[in-house]
Amino acid sequence: MKKMLSSFVLCSTVLSSMGAEKAVKLPEPDKLGGKPLMQVLTERKSTRTFSDKELSLQELSDLLYAATGQNRSDGRRTNPTALNAQDVVLYIAMKEGLFRYDQAKNELLLEQKRDIRSLCGMRTEFYTGSPLTLIPVSNIATMKAKNIPEDKCRIFASLHIGCVVQNIYLYAASAGFGTVCTASIDSAKLAEEMKLDKDHVILISMPFSK
Amino acid sequence: MKKMLSSFVLCSTVLSSMGAEKAVKLPEPDKLGGKPLMQVLTERKSTRTFSDKELSLQELSDLLYAATGQNRSDGRRTNPTALNAQDVVLYIAMKEGLFRYDQAKNELLLEQKRDIRSLCGMRTEFYTGSPLTLIPVSNIATMKAKNIPEDKCRIFASLHIGCVVQNIYLYAASAGFGTVCTASIDSAKLAEEMKLDKDHVILISMPFSK
Repeated sequence: MKKMLSSFVLCSTVLSSMGAEKAVKLPEPDKLGGKPLMQVLTERKSTRTFSDKELSLQELSDLLYAATGQNRSDGRRTNPTALNAQDVVLYIAMKEGLFRYDQAKNELLLEQKRDIRSLCGMRTEFYTGSPLTLIPVSNIATMKAKNIPEDKCRIFASLHIGCVVQNIYLYAASAGFGTVCTASIDSAKLAEEMKLDKDHVILISMPFSK
Repeated sequence: MKKMLSSFVLCSTVLSSMGAEKAVKLPEPDKLGGKPLMQVLTERKSTRTFSDKELSLQELSDLLYAATGQNRSDGRRTNPTALNAQDVVLYIAMKEGLFRYDQAKNELLLEQKRDIRSLCGMRTEFYTGSPLTLIPVSNIATMKAKNIPEDKCRIFASLHIGCVVQNIYLYAASAGFGTVCTASIDSAKLAEEMKLDKDHVILISMPFSK
């Protein structure tokens, strides 16, 4: 198994066989490499053409770590949140299913074994034409629990999602991928399909590919 | 003059003499350097102790470029915005005055020749104890002009500010500075002091220092 999860294993090799097992361990993310930050910022852009070329499991692990990985032993993350609420839950829609990132365990959790990519936004070709779509969702229950008023929670949800969006853009620029942040989404329909309650704010999605 | 604006000139050397002149050209930002992205993400954190050590004009230029610099000849930036609205206006409160970043000209514009740092948030010691505070403001008039409904504009304002916040955090991690994003602000009072109309959304501020 260790050998199988080497850098070059494609996501589908591991994920398509999931079902009975609900979690797969990701390879350790690269925590030190990539292009220099200022170059990455210079190359940061939105792309609107995608390829169906699959990511390796290593690339997926690096991507998820960049987006909202745990970067400290106390559980804090690459992205900031008000009062350390850690409200952002990162979902990944792939052909093999809908997954959720568990940054503490560095695992990918199978939420649903079906392809919901075509529901991830209005421009269907973005989503079905790329191997995965990232959906950073804010669970504002985490903020309500810290006595932040609901109207503030909803403002912070957008702010926090924005930080994760930028991390995804920068990883794309560093590692040679393309992505775009789109808000043309039927959020209510997508939340229903993802089985999320009304404390979960869906604002944007990001198709992602080579 | 060219010589004066070398990498090591401190901000105050140039900015304290401004008044009659309203703009100062910034040194060309570093568009290629910095630490590797994944290391920067690993080192991304909030700090809550600051020093009054000044930034050099070069460091300020790099910081502003990272936050929301123009990275393409068509005017597009390091941070994304819905429909390319480019609504985020970056203000910098320093002892020498309140400044605004003009990314197209790579200039610092003097808005007011007075120190408003103590008004930048509730934790006054953060602001008066650091040489500068960044205030990324969203001017939603730019989005209204693109026929985005006002309620959506306000959601996007937070999302867009979040992207800039993350850029600032990552530059801090790369270049050895400290910062924190705080929303404990009397936004109405600060907007009044900054002479901003009600289309300008102030959500957070970020004291910034060595």
